Amino acid sequence: MTDTASPPDLPALDIEDVRAAAARIEGRVRTTPVLRIEALDQMAGAELWLKAENLQHIGAFKARGAMHAVGQLGEAGRARGVITFSSGNHAQAVALAARSYGCAATIVMPTDAPKIKVAGVKALGGEIVFAGTTSDVRREAAMSLAERSGAAVVQPFDHPHIVAGAGTATLELVDEVAARTGGGTLDALLVPVGGGGLIAGACLAAAPAGTAIYSVEPHGCDAMARSLEAGERVAVSPGPTLADGLKPTMVGALNFAIAKQHVAGSFRVGDDDLGPALRALLVHGKVLVEPSGAAALAVALTGRLPGAPRRIGVILSGGNVDPSLVARLIDTPAEA
Amino acid sequence: MTDTASPPDLPALDIEDVRAAAARIEGRVRTTPVLRIEALDQMAGAELWLKAENLQHIGAFKARGAMHAVGQLGEAGRARGVITFSSGNHAQAVALAARSYGCAATIVMPTDAPKIKVAGVKALGGEIVFAGTTSDVRREAAMSLAERSGAAVVQPFDHPHIVAGAGTATLELVDEVAARTGGGTLDALLVPVGGGGLIAGACLAAAPAGTAIYSVEPHGCDAMARSLEAGERVAVSPGPTLADGLKPTMVGALNFAIAKQHVAGSFRVGDDDLGPALRALLVHGKVLVEPSGAAALAVALTGRLPGAPRRIGVILSGGNVDPSLVARLIDTPAEA
Repeated sequence: MTDTASPPDLPALDIEDVRAAAARIEGRVRTTPVLRIEALDQMAGAELWLKAENLQHIGAFKARGAMHAVGQLGEAGRARGVITFSSGNHAQAVALAARSYGCAATIVMPTDAPKIKVAGVKALGGEIVFAGTTSDVRREAAMSLAERSGAAVVQPFDHPHIVAGAGTATLELVDEVAARTGGGTLDALLVPVGGGGLIAGACLAAAPAGTAIYSVEPHGCDAMARSLEAGERVAVSPGPTLADGLKPTMVGALNFAIAKQHVAGSFRVGDDDLGPALRALLVHGKVLVEPSGAAALAVALTGRLPGAPRRIGVILSGGNVDPSLVARLIDTPAEA
Repeated sequence: MTDTASPPDLPALDIEDVRAAAARIEGRVRTTPVLRIEALDQMAGAELWLKAENLQHIGAFKARGAMHAVGQLGEAGRARGVITFSSGNHAQAVALAARSYGCAATIVMPTDAPKIKVAGVKALGGEIVFAGTTSDVRREAAMSLAERSGAAVVQPFDHPHIVAGAGTATLELVDEVAARTGGGTLDALLVPVGGGGLIAGACLAAAPAGTAIYSVEPHGCDAMARSLEAGERVAVSPGPTLADGLKPTMVGALNFAIAKQHVAGSFRVGDDDLGPALRALLVHGKVLVEPSGAAALAVALTGRLPGAPRRIGVILSGGNVDPSLVARLIDTPAEA
């Protein structure tokens, strides 16, 4: 990893951009709880500070970036509605933001999107167009629709408004850790990575305090890890994973530029890690995450972090998952 | 229902006793979140204010009363340890309180207690003695053990310290509703009833504001409803129910005396109501309750309350449930 600044064609962002985003979206998104669960601390051998973005509006952190981005369009920018493409949570987030600002939303979703995420978009009044199963195909469909309708495209992850908005989750976590520990900081922070907007925002919010930030991706969907190793963005053909939110073919250019300045290391997890993490959180913490949302916790529970950090932040990024999958993942013999 | 005061041999309690309990247990129990979940409001046709005691220490409101009762014993009273009898959550609560105050705890549990509740007591350092399957049998076993050891008996529900402690959950709910609505109050409050300590405390905390308080019990375990109808305590032979926390043979004398002054009506629910309520809360709210903890929500979701209340408080009393049961309850086809 190098310590170079962002390329000149990418905007330079810092924690002040995150603070500004937090002020703009206040009241339109939730300040989510930070959970402390003794049984999980014991499994991890460290203090885990769990940022419960599964309890955010629409059940995922994506509400933050979308709300910020749609707000920043201004009234004129929203006049012909907004459009986006997403495997799920960003779809609901844009539908929510559009409703919050009183404009129309069209959402291009993959044909294999979980039913619960499709139902969520419909319930929020979003219009759905199905297209393919990869982010490339649905991006193209959205762009083509936007050209015809004049709707504003809301990027799912690679945009400064999205990054600054996503960063507000980590900003709240950092602030709450400080408040509850008399000014303490996180030694490490684990962040699930799909397109990289969440970790880019986390870098802006947490790196100034010296926190070591780690990316977590499914095996075979490790676009960020490979890009960090290569020093430039690398495309992957996402393999099968339960973490349907962490499957982009490539991380965002802006997100990578920020991540490569700040990210201390990368982890990969399998379905065999995600299921038990989801189950442990449900049993001991009584909250539900989707498999993508369990990715960072899965790493924390296996104690794989270098340097034996004492205080670890974990972003629980979302909780939208079909109940039948949850049933399958948790229906194992109870511990003694 | 009559409006007579408590019999002279029972202590007179009011909201000030609950406030005093809240001050005593502060820092030893959690101020739990009050959840607002749009999809559940739509199902209920009202604003539901969900007090998430499933996110309390040991996963249930019982931590409050036990912490208060063990604290009020004083150091001398705890010197030979504490002992209790419980179908589950009170067991963990007393083990937690004993650990918090640095004394030993012995817990008499039913032979059919859920594994997760047994494991919870062990993890907190409590010593377990198994005895029978009814509250009568385990009460007798505990009394006999206490006589020999000199340990202090911590009643599970029928004691002024337990009632005042349990009432702190409703006190927090009432205070948060007021804070978030500019001084508003609840029109109605739904409370699951086992031995009646939770609803007795709820009466103390919520009745002064004019809130209509309703009891909720499983069909066949309706000791409170029958007692209110009869005007005196009536014993039941608890029938089968998924709500293992709501199966006492009789409500407490103190609890009944308070309830009959304040409770506006009673509801009964079946397993067919509890499962869907648990599932709806997990899907839409991302939090897990045990079947007992879903009882009040089950009534709220069916819109059965008289007078079409606009703002309804719902106590989610606990979240300790074997994952295999959760898997069975949620593994139904997803909604469209």
